[in-house]
Amino acid sequence: MADRRKLKRGKLALVLLVFQLLFLILFGVFVDYNEHSDGTAEQNNKDVANGGDDPTNNQLGYYYAMFQDVHVMIFIGFGFLMTFLKKYGFGSVGFNFLIAAFVIQWATLMQGFFHIEHGKISVGITTLLTSDFASAAVLISFGAVLGKLSHVQYILMAFLEIIFFAINEYVGIYHFQVADVGGSMFVHTFGAYFGLAVARVLFKKPMAGSSKEGSNYTTDLFSMIGTIFLWMFWPSFNSALAPGDDQHRAVINTYFALAACCVTTFAISSAVSKDGKIDMVHIQNSTLAGGVAVGTCANMMIHPWGAMLIGIVAGTLSVIGFKWITPMMLSKLNIHDTCGVNNLHGMPGVLAGIAGAIAAAVAEVSNYGNGLYEVFPARAPAANTTAYVETVAEFAIEAGPGRSAAMQAGFQMVALVVTMAIAIVTGMVTGLLLKIPFLGQLTSDEYFDDTNYWEIAEEEEDEKYVNVTVDDVINENNPEKKVDDESRM
Amino acid sequence: MADRRKLKRGKLALVLLVFQLLFLILFGVFVDYNEHSDGTAEQNNKDVANGGDDPTNNQLGYYYAMFQDVHVMIFIGFGFLMTFLKKYGFGSVGFNFLIAAFVIQWATLMQGFFHIEHGKISVGITTLLTSDFASAAVLISFGAVLGKLSHVQYILMAFLEIIFFAINEYVGIYHFQVADVGGSMFVHTFGAYFGLAVARVLFKKPMAGSSKEGSNYTTDLFSMIGTIFLWMFWPSFNSALAPGDDQHRAVINTYFALAACCVTTFAISSAVSKDGKIDMVHIQNSTLAGGVAVGTCANMMIHPWGAMLIGIVAGTLSVIGFKWITPMMLSKLNIHDTCGVNNLHGMPGVLAGIAGAIAAAVAEVSNYGNGLYEVFPARAPAANTTAYVETVAEFAIEAGPGRSAAMQAGFQMVALVVTMAIAIVTGMVTGLLLKIPFLGQLTSDEYFDDTNYWEIAEEEEDEKYVNVTVDDVINENNPEKKVDDESRM
Amino acid sequence: MADRRKLKRGKLALVLLVFQLLFLILFGVFVDYNEHSDGTAEQNNKDVANGGDDPTNNQLGYYYAMFQDVHVMIFIGFGFLMTFLKKYGFGSVGFNFLIAAFVIQWATLMQGFFHIEHGKISVGITTLLTSDFASAAVLISFGAVLGKLSHVQYILMAFLEIIFFAINEYVGIYHFQVADVGGSMFVHTFGAYFGLAVARVLFKKPMAGSSKEGSNYTTDLFSMIGTIFLWMFWPSFNSALAPGDDQHRAVINTYFALAACCVTTFAISSAVSKDGKIDMVHIQNSTLAGGVAVGTCANMMIHPWGAMLIGIVAGTLSVIGFKWITPMMLSKLNIHDTCGVNNLHGMPGVLAGIAGAIAAAVAEVSNYGNGLYEVFPARAPAANTTAYVETVAEFAIEAGPGRSAAMQAGFQMVALVVTMAIAIVTGMVTGLLLKIPFLGQLTSDEYFDDTNYWEIAEEEEDEKYVNVTVDDVINENNPEKKVDDESRM
Repeated sequence: MADRRKLKRGKLALVLLVFQLLFLILFGVFVDYNEHSDGTAEQNNKDVANGGDDPTNNQLGYYYAMFQDVHVMIFIGFGFLMTFLKKYGFGSVGFNFLIAAFVIQWATLMQGFFHIEHGKISVGITTLLTSDFASAAVLISFGAVLGKLSHVQYILMAFLEIIFFAINEYVGIYHFQVADVGGSMFVHTFGAYFGLAVARVLFKKPMAGSSKEGSNYTTDLFSMIGTIFLWMFWPSFNSALAPGDDQHRAVINTYFALAACCVTTFAISSAVSKDGKIDMVHIQNSTLAGGVAVGTCANMMIHPWGAMLIGIVAGTLSVIGFKWITPMMLSKLNIHDTCGVNNLHGMPGVLAGIAGAIAAAVAEVSNYGNGLYEVFPARAPAANTTAYVETVAEFAIEAGPGRSAAMQAGFQMVALVVTMAIAIVTGMVTGLLLKIPFLGQLTSDEYFDDTNYWEIAEEEEDEKYVNVTVDDVINENNPEKKVDDESRM
Repeated sequence: MADRRKLKRGKLALVLLVFQLLFLILFGVFVDYNEHSDGTAEQNNKDVANGGDDPTNNQLGYYYAMFQDVHVMIFIGFGFLMTFLKKYGFGSVGFNFLIAAFVIQWATLMQGFFHIEHGKISVGITTLLTSDFASAAVLISFGAVLGKLSHVQYILMAFLEIIFFAINEYVGIYHFQVADVGGSMFVHTFGAYFGLAVARVLFKKPMAGSSKEGSNYTTDLFSMIGTIFLWMFWPSFNSALAPGDDQHRAVINTYFALAACCVTTFAISSAVSKDGKIDMVHIQNSTLAGGVAVGTCANMMIHPWGAMLIGIVAGTLSVIGFKWITPMMLSKLNIHDTCGVNNLHGMPGVLAGIAGAIAAAVAEVSNYGNGLYEVFPARAPAANTTAYVETVAEFAIEAGPGRSAAMQAGFQMVALVVTMAIAIVTGMVTGLLLKIPFLGQLTSDEYFDDTNYWEIAEEEEDEKYVNVTVDDVINENNPEKKVDDESRM
Repeated sequence: MADRRKLKRGKLALVLLVFQLLFLILFGVFVDYNEHSDGTAEQNNKDVANGGDDPTNNQLGYYYAMFQDVHVMIFIGFGFLMTFLKKYGFGSVGFNFLIAAFVIQWATLMQGFFHIEHGKISVGITTLLTSDFASAAVLISFGAVLGKLSHVQYILMAFLEIIFFAINEYVGIYHFQVADVGGSMFVHTFGAYFGLAVARVLFKKPMAGSSKEGSNYTTDLFSMIGTIFLWMFWPSFNSALAPGDDQHRAVINTYFALAACCVTTFAISSAVSKDGKIDMVHIQNSTLAGGVAVGTCANMMIHPWGAMLIGIVAGTLSVIGFKWITPMMLSKLNIHDTCGVNNLHGMPGVLAGIAGAIAAAVAEVSNYGNGLYEVFPARAPAANTTAYVETVAEFAIEAGPGRSAAMQAGFQMVALVVTMAIAIVTGMVTGLLLKIPFLGQLTSDEYFDDTNYWEIAEEEEDEKYVNVTVDDVINENNPEKKVDDESRM
């Protein structure tokens, strides 16, 4: 036993340090400041002459407040949302922290390799933002397998997922040239189906462990911290990278989609639960589905009522998912989805893709102005066409392939389908790789239990003090009657 | 029993869905993007030509960071502040979430109807802000009746309150032309007295329920999350809609008022509590009274010492309120104020109105410059007077009715009194309407108890595990001795 | 007993009110709005003419979002980080709140006295920021003595510390002209060694109290709220006062230093803990050491890999500190460091000072451009030298003493050593003054216990209900067997 433990000890440290040193070396070779953060850049030299503090001169001011909102969503939002598990709170917020800190380094490199120039990856506030977005995809997958993998498996999953994520995102944005301002396809849909595919491959019948798969009153309140920070800052997530009025619109649309989704979730939760009571699981998760579902078309001219309609459908779909689809996936498909990511990210992500395609199909200059070419660059007329020369050249708009609305809508759907396909296939491959014995495998009765990987503070006296059970007391009074207390923390 | 439950189930879903669909239709008919978020607006078309990302061109950049601070106050601040109740944490943070999401849609419409143009309500970041402010008023009222109403009653209260709130605000700002930058009169005072009036009308002698009306060690810590987020972001609440130096001043004044109020609250709490100990109720609430009390005059030239003085008085008043006035209101006036909103929003709101009137009475061009007409538009000279032509016309300042300082102060006091009168009368009417049997009424022993409306996660084994009581154990060992455990969660 | 209690009651109120009234008077005499917040300032008068809401005209817009991030770090970050103590959560978050609210007033005065002009201290958003930074120093010291001082002792410590803090900061920034953008020397190192010196002088052998010096599952989760808000917003702390590209660089460097530090902390924690398990104490604290360690050179051209290297070293050092240095300091040096501030702020602060000196030693115009004189004003050539006239005069850069890189590095090291010396000496003096009997002294078995100073909500029935212990039950069933339950809350 002692040997196995020593091995285990070496393992996490070894894996993390190897990766961390690898990142250090790759950063040393490839990564440097962009022109807004490099002291020798021409503009920055001029800034000094002006006293250096003109907020309109540096890109940071435009993005920073929203970046921090997104940062809070990643580390507090996702982290605390998952603390609902009554014996896996350390793992939820702790491994969320580790995975995200790991991924923001790795994603800077992987996303950067697709934009490398002169052998250098330039970083700045916009790459910090896209690194945070990438970590969201992994944290969504983490939600599907929460409590069921070893720490080393989580790390390897994160490492592999980012590779596939970056490829899919690159294909979608640069080859298909689709709009997905809030990443509902490339982040949410991808993360959800990747995670579910991993969960499917690693499926084990949960047995003794299942009694730990639940929340208690206190952990449900901790989880609400995550929910509400996610809910509040989702407008920033969906609009952070958009410019000007597109950004403004994305904020408004996300705000109303979420408001309508929240109200709808309470209604449907009450309608489907026994006794008309409200289920905390729905409130913690389905209230957010509107933010996912509006994410692809948030910067489009869908009007506030369109956003609300999307929110209403998403909330309804998500509660139905928790009530009937999640149990069915478990019993029929052997897919165990710890956090219900299919209901919060998967189905609402697909809804987002469809809504985005519909909105794209009706987008014209008449309702977007020149903003059409900002939202859909591929709609811009080709350079030497009459349409370009006579209508948009004077606005210095970049020429594009001149897609029709219908073609753009088609590409949006293609990107959705390709994203799901890549997510499922690469997720299954990843699941198989995670079966390598070195990585450690939990038995199903070790699931959802912090004691596997965390020093638990209180022991002895204090443990009894807080967690005394009726059985304990009876045993104390009747020493001959013993019960197994393995399952208690 | 089963029938009653089914009815209950249908009821929340029915009420919420009817309202949500009504909002959807009204948004479809009336609401659209403002000129900063509509792609076809002229400026936005120009933006695209410039690359579209000039942060100074779009209104969003100016307001967004403060908007998100206010958003956090509404959903985390108010929501967690109320989780102190040891068995009503789900209801506190959950119904807070529902009510706020409901109100931000309804207030967009109600406040919008007063500014409708060409049959359209234009929304943008400033209307999101005012919708959030409106929800604060309802959440304050919610604090007065926390734990004592059914979910359907909360919703109907919110629906009615916003109508009266919007009318009172419109009268105050557009007819009386008073200054109330942080909404201390129109939001805090209104919300508090409306809620107390509802509480008065619905008063029932609390009996068995009263043992649940308290906090425990853990819920007091959750509540502090709310307190501290409210405290930190209050400068944003009081300054979000102010321009330039007025905004800067509002931040400074609120910061110092709150700091002085916090220190004073600790002092007075210790002075009035037995054994010199500090009472968490005071720290959770009275530390915030300075933010309310400085809210009307935060953008005025009250100087940092003036702000601190207001904070000191507010903290003192608030602790005294909790210690002596709240118990007296219960015993003499049959007003039960669950969260003590009279001490955090009511009396400090009245103090704010008075402080605002005093500050208005001494405001002159000599100490405000032209900013006088920004803070008090009604002070601007009438269009064809010498004062206008010779002194302010060159600055393109809009002409006003040319009020004197004393007249402005008088109007400030009138607005305060009218606000209180409207709040109390419409609150009482609302309370009477909430007695409609369809809405469901809690008996006083159902008060402050999440089990009425929420699925409580842990049951069976785990419930015992965490909440084992001495009585349970005794009963277990002595099966003949039974106790009623209805009241335990 | 009753008399002692009455005395105690009077004491906190007396001390706080005397200080608060003193602050009020000093603010009345000395403090007023700066030119960005005073209505009569020329620019603000012009603003009104322009509609008053040009966001580029007022300094507030540039600093406010980052200011609020720092504000969250001070009140939520530090406050909740310390709630890990299972019976001192009220004291952690509550006294943190009191001390910070006290200090931001006092630091406004003390820091202001060094920049007084025409008898006036001008306040604005930048002074609010520096006041918040000052409170961080005191809260770090508070971490060293957490749970071991009376409330009155905390207040007096804060009062005295700010005097020494302001002097040391003034000497370092204005006399030594060193760079310390994130305050790692002047805030973190100072605060840590000041606090440890106080702890040394007031050292008592902890005995009965020691069983309360630990966390439980719930309080460890509360503590993670603090950790993660500190971690997320640290880029704002390290960059808030920097201009343009320096600020952008400080954000990037801090982001990557923290990410690398977090991953490293998990690795080393697992490597040094028994069974390879991860220790929550390390995750709560050591993950943040990278933010401290990069704080002095965050705005320098250290490149992302340099920032990551600093983060890796800091995380390693910090975990080693918790594992071996903190126990050794207790057993060999009689220094008891409740929160391990030596590992989070002390040693990483020293590392920051050294890293800053190294970075300063290699800083030249070739890698900074004119930004060199922004980061290191003392490097600017003297006014009448050829270097000034021919190379930098045209950029309107202020002349300086023309230090070489090596000289600047030397001054950086001098500032570090002087900071540590002043912190230790003034900390010991403060510790001696805190022994004045009037201030109240806790015996070591009163340590880490909220019941000394806080009304604890639940008593009687409910206390038993939640905290029932095996002993309680046995006693209940066997009334003759009694145990002392004094130590239970």
